[in-house]
Amino acid sequence: MTVNVGVIGVGMIGQDHIRRLTQVLSGARVSALTDVDMDRAKSVGQGLPGEVRVHETGQDLINDDGVDAVVVASWGPTHEEYVLAAIAAGKQVFCEKPLATTREACERIVDAEVAAGRRLVMVGFMRRYDDGYRAMKDVVTSGDIGAPLMFHSAHRNPSVPPHYVSDMIINDTCVHDLDIARFLLDTEVTAAQVLKPRKNSRASDHLTDPLLILFETASGALIDVEASINIQYGYDIRGEIVGEAGTVELAESTRVVVKSDGRYGGRIPEDWRERFIRAYDLEFQEWLDAVAAGRSTGPSSWDGYAATVACDAALEALNGGQRVPVSMRDKPDLYSSPATGAGPTGTD
Amino acid sequence: MTVNVGVIGVGMIGQDHIRRLTQVLSGARVSALTDVDMDRAKSVGQGLPGEVRVHETGQDLINDDGVDAVVVASWGPTHEEYVLAAIAAGKQVFCEKPLATTREACERIVDAEVAAGRRLVMVGFMRRYDDGYRAMKDVVTSGDIGAPLMFHSAHRNPSVPPHYVSDMIINDTCVHDLDIARFLLDTEVTAAQVLKPRKNSRASDHLTDPLLILFETASGALIDVEASINIQYGYDIRGEIVGEAGTVELAESTRVVVKSDGRYGGRIPEDWRERFIRAYDLEFQEWLDAVAAGRSTGPSSWDGYAATVACDAALEALNGGQRVPVSMRDKPDLYSSPATGAGPTGTD
Amino acid sequence: MTVNVGVIGVGMIGQDHIRRLTQVLSGARVSALTDVDMDRAKSVGQGLPGEVRVHETGQDLINDDGVDAVVVASWGPTHEEYVLAAIAAGKQVFCEKPLATTREACERIVDAEVAAGRRLVMVGFMRRYDDGYRAMKDVVTSGDIGAPLMFHSAHRNPSVPPHYVSDMIINDTCVHDLDIARFLLDTEVTAAQVLKPRKNSRASDHLTDPLLILFETASGALIDVEASINIQYGYDIRGEIVGEAGTVELAESTRVVVKSDGRYGGRIPEDWRERFIRAYDLEFQEWLDAVAAGRSTGPSSWDGYAATVACDAALEALNGGQRVPVSMRDKPDLYSSPATGAGPTGTD
Amino acid sequence: MTVNVGVIGVGMIGQDHIRRLTQVLSGARVSALTDVDMDRAKSVGQGLPGEVRVHETGQDLINDDGVDAVVVASWGPTHEEYVLAAIAAGKQVFCEKPLATTREACERIVDAEVAAGRRLVMVGFMRRYDDGYRAMKDVVTSGDIGAPLMFHSAHRNPSVPPHYVSDMIINDTCVHDLDIARFLLDTEVTAAQVLKPRKNSRASDHLTDPLLILFETASGALIDVEASINIQYGYDIRGEIVGEAGTVELAESTRVVVKSDGRYGGRIPEDWRERFIRAYDLEFQEWLDAVAAGRSTGPSSWDGYAATVACDAALEALNGGQRVPVSMRDKPDLYSSPATGAGPTGTD
Repeated sequence: MTVNVGVIGVGMIGQDHIRRLTQVLSGARVSALTDVDMDRAKSVGQGLPGEVRVHETGQDLINDDGVDAVVVASWGPTHEEYVLAAIAAGKQVFCEKPLATTREACERIVDAEVAAGRRLVMVGFMRRYDDGYRAMKDVVTSGDIGAPLMFHSAHRNPSVPPHYVSDMIINDTCVHDLDIARFLLDTEVTAAQVLKPRKNSRASDHLTDPLLILFETASGALIDVEASINIQYGYDIRGEIVGEAGTVELAESTRVVVKSDGRYGGRIPEDWRERFIRAYDLEFQEWLDAVAAGRSTGPSSWDGYAATVACDAALEALNGGQRVPVSMRDKPDLYSSPATGAGPTGTD
Repeated sequence: MTVNVGVIGVGMIGQDHIRRLTQVLSGARVSALTDVDMDRAKSVGQGLPGEVRVHETGQDLINDDGVDAVVVASWGPTHEEYVLAAIAAGKQVFCEKPLATTREACERIVDAEVAAGRRLVMVGFMRRYDDGYRAMKDVVTSGDIGAPLMFHSAHRNPSVPPHYVSDMIINDTCVHDLDIARFLLDTEVTAAQVLKPRKNSRASDHLTDPLLILFETASGALIDVEASINIQYGYDIRGEIVGEAGTVELAESTRVVVKSDGRYGGRIPEDWRERFIRAYDLEFQEWLDAVAAGRSTGPSSWDGYAATVACDAALEALNGGQRVPVSMRDKPDLYSSPATGAGPTGTD
Repeated sequence: MTVNVGVIGVGMIGQDHIRRLTQVLSGARVSALTDVDMDRAKSVGQGLPGEVRVHETGQDLINDDGVDAVVVASWGPTHEEYVLAAIAAGKQVFCEKPLATTREACERIVDAEVAAGRRLVMVGFMRRYDDGYRAMKDVVTSGDIGAPLMFHSAHRNPSVPPHYVSDMIINDTCVHDLDIARFLLDTEVTAAQVLKPRKNSRASDHLTDPLLILFETASGALIDVEASINIQYGYDIRGEIVGEAGTVELAESTRVVVKSDGRYGGRIPEDWRERFIRAYDLEFQEWLDAVAAGRSTGPSSWDGYAATVACDAALEALNGGQRVPVSMRDKPDLYSSPATGAGPTGTD
Repeated sequence: MTVNVGVIGVGMIGQDHIRRLTQVLSGARVSALTDVDMDRAKSVGQGLPGEVRVHETGQDLINDDGVDAVVVASWGPTHEEYVLAAIAAGKQVFCEKPLATTREACERIVDAEVAAGRRLVMVGFMRRYDDGYRAMKDVVTSGDIGAPLMFHSAHRNPSVPPHYVSDMIINDTCVHDLDIARFLLDTEVTAAQVLKPRKNSRASDHLTDPLLILFETASGALIDVEASINIQYGYDIRGEIVGEAGTVELAESTRVVVKSDGRYGGRIPEDWRERFIRAYDLEFQEWLDAVAAGRSTGPSSWDGYAATVACDAALEALNGGQRVPVSMRDKPDLYSSPATGAGPTGTD
């Protein structure tokens, strides 16, 4: 079965997903588009094979009978509206992170999905589809290193664009570290704290770079996230779980080791595209396969809600300087059961 | 454009390619099948989406107007016939290695393709699509390590099936090392020699395992291939190019490093599927994209011919014990020009 | 010149230093011994070559004209007395850590040395002589990775003996991480904080294991130290400096990589002896060479004082749960000048 | 006990051993010297502590009652005379490689030692004292990887001095690979063959660089040695044993991994001093300890003989182009028994 996908938002990320759906993956076609910029939507639509309807609004697109499933890749503040509409229409929706920009908006989505009685939303936390993190999860699950006690994470960017502000270190950058930590440790954040080391002289005046973000969790496992967003040397994502009897850490991703000029070594990825392109592909293929099979899969609305709540606490800690506790609503049964669909490691 | 692919031979490898074409890659559908076992062909066809014609013969399949391009995955001795038929029909054909089982058969294919005036054949040397080897090629091409002088290769299998005989070490196993060496060093083999170290006690009585196979080349670069086909510990493909001023070697492919029980370390692939699954995917996607665009790409008939000729010499050396020179016909212009299609690193 | 060394305290560590002085290194002999257990002192003395005087007290040993320099390897609370006596006698003294058990005692030693007008004390922080840390220091000093902003350290012990209590995590174990951090970052600690992750179920009831200890510093560089003292898999000391434009971390110390049973990997040290035996040798040879040349060298009384003060703050943080600021006296000129003797990297 | 050592030959290598004996190791003093250049001998003697006698001839030095043991570090062609004289005098002698420059000379030494009834000669094959090779030997001995079937060795020098000629690739450079192969594989060479890859354009006109040297052995294990003597990037000694069920290879020797400018990596040693300085120290300490205890240890005259014989065959193969068989005399019992002294791994 070919899944007819409607895409809301055809900016950089939306166009990349369209390329993925039409040129890389199996089982999908793009049947409808919309964008805040109608000219852009039309232009993108004309470059695609087959008939592609260009809608005036996201709501129209969602209601299009020729749309089986929806991708939301528009501006963050619009996510809530489109996700709720997709739930109302009973259509599977892939929503780029964030699920929504406020805790309350995330709760409304969770409520709607619970009311619908089945999972329809997948949030774009693509790291869960990275080979490295999946292998880490397998090691943790195997019990070979005992219960996980700590997760050391580092998010290093060579640089950030001019419009980047310090809040984005948490909301846009380290939200990925947070989500993967929740996934690996299988627990929820209970408090956040942020330390500000000596500032990187390569960082713009308005940025607090680097940071060390600490998350306490319900299981007691401690998460520390180094955020270095102007570290020049490359895009380097590090992760290590410290267990009771051993550890597991991400390996370097280089394919070859070169020896020259007195040194041996390998390549560090240049940017997130190089590092995670396969994870994006797998994430979407998994979603398409689930949609085709009438199942749900992947990071859920609950994961989107939990990430937003924890990031809110970290932001408050960043701006206020103190340890900030996190409170969360009870987890609906919909998200605790082994679920209607299999997640990346087969246990959702 | 969707490429309608006809598949000749639906045994293990044929079925795997069908899975790839229908469930993994973009832009193809399987429109026709045939097999020496018609029941098997029908059974496989029934499991596929859409209409799939099951033909009595490969020739019928090739002549089917609903077949745009052909995959030959049947028994080696039948390859020549089907490849020649595809060339005659002017259809692109992907032929699993070997291109053909004799030097003369390969030459007939080369002649036919030259007579046709364009490249229509791609041979399934999938290592050229492996990230590791492509990165090695890039390093060699960059000039950073100077001209390549030696290539150390090792092909290690944990074990081989009962029907495996010593000639297969060269024809089926190390033919991959040979092809990738030709690709990396950009030269032709001029002589072969085979040394037989102490025998592995885990090997069956009839096997000469391990071997050290030496290939001299026109550029002077020396190729040594260790073949260890019962080494138990894993499927481990090693490769290192020694240049005038540096070296480049394949990195380990593990995704995580685990520390436990007094040791740190990572996983070795279990079999060729785990090691090269991505290369198979990329190989086929590249072929599909080329077919859709009316271009040719990838390892050519000439590469298939060169591999067969060099393997013949190595076999003679294995069985006779002496250094065996290799003679090749002149390379037709069709294969030396930058070509109608781009190869994996953009230079064919 | 052969240095005549007197050793105070011939327990496990004292005997190990005697072995080092007499069987491994060049330029020393042990001329005198004492111990709280005179029988043990006599027994050890009889096993040594040449005449070895066994003294009733450390004071007698220090005053022995046949003693050129003193090693203090007795119980921590006795260190102050012997170090002060050695300073009073104008003899070089190597003091195992801690320099002294209280801040005030350390200050008395600093005062005495300042009054003496020259450095006579070297404290046994042997990590400064480890090849790995010295290479890290060289990278930091080179400027290749920019100014250091963070130091991630991990101290992992497979297990601890029954008498081990939680305070020892800071005073005996992580004091080494702290000292090497001061050495690498060239700054002083200004505050300490301790986080207690989920407890390792392999740890005794009375232990808080693991810990994450955070030290803020005058330069702004942030130090985080993971202490995992029952981690089973080995004795693993990790360290990474995050600079403005790059990082440097300790490499694994294995000498060979083994491939077997589906994995590749190397050895993790079994205990501190295996990991740091060379550092102990180099530390002592450096001290002997300095003594023979009439110079001073190595970690100073000031380093011993700074470590004690910072550990006191970390202990308070561990027991109280809050961030604890550190106050230090001004650094006497004696310790800031390039000094009478060269330290391990040539800059004291 | 302090061993009084007489040193014959105080050129670069002799002076380095004197430094080692007097400034690094425990238990030795240099009591006598001689050199073909008497002025140099006197000058070196004046820089040493204590009384050092300077002899006119090696024979005089050997007969000096104040000399307990002899180091031969003079020009290769003189080794035989001094080693035979030391055996005649019943004194332990450490002889730098080669033991002697001809097969016949080596046989005369072996005969003399056998006649003396005990081992008195240790040959300076220092790689046997390298941590890496010793760990490899331990893995082989453990049986974890099964019987060894192949040894891949590579000897890479950044460059060679102007006086270096091609024969030295075998006699001075790869003789170390050969000796360590014999040690690791515990067998003797039975034939040699040399292949000449494309020449390195950085090499002088008169050099055949690189080479691939193949040694067959009595056990059937195959040795291949890559010699690359102008490879620019560093002094890189590689070694890998391929066993029946696994492999073991030398790890990189870097102490830290640096990330900068898009790459991670570590240092390659600059020269043999950096790579093997510890092995030289351990080799000499082991010899001194054995001399002091009246035992013998380390690589024997037989090892020196075997190396010379195998190198002769490789030289003939290099110059003639053919496979050259090796014939050796029977091994005297003196060298096959577990011996009077323990070798580096406790089994001589």
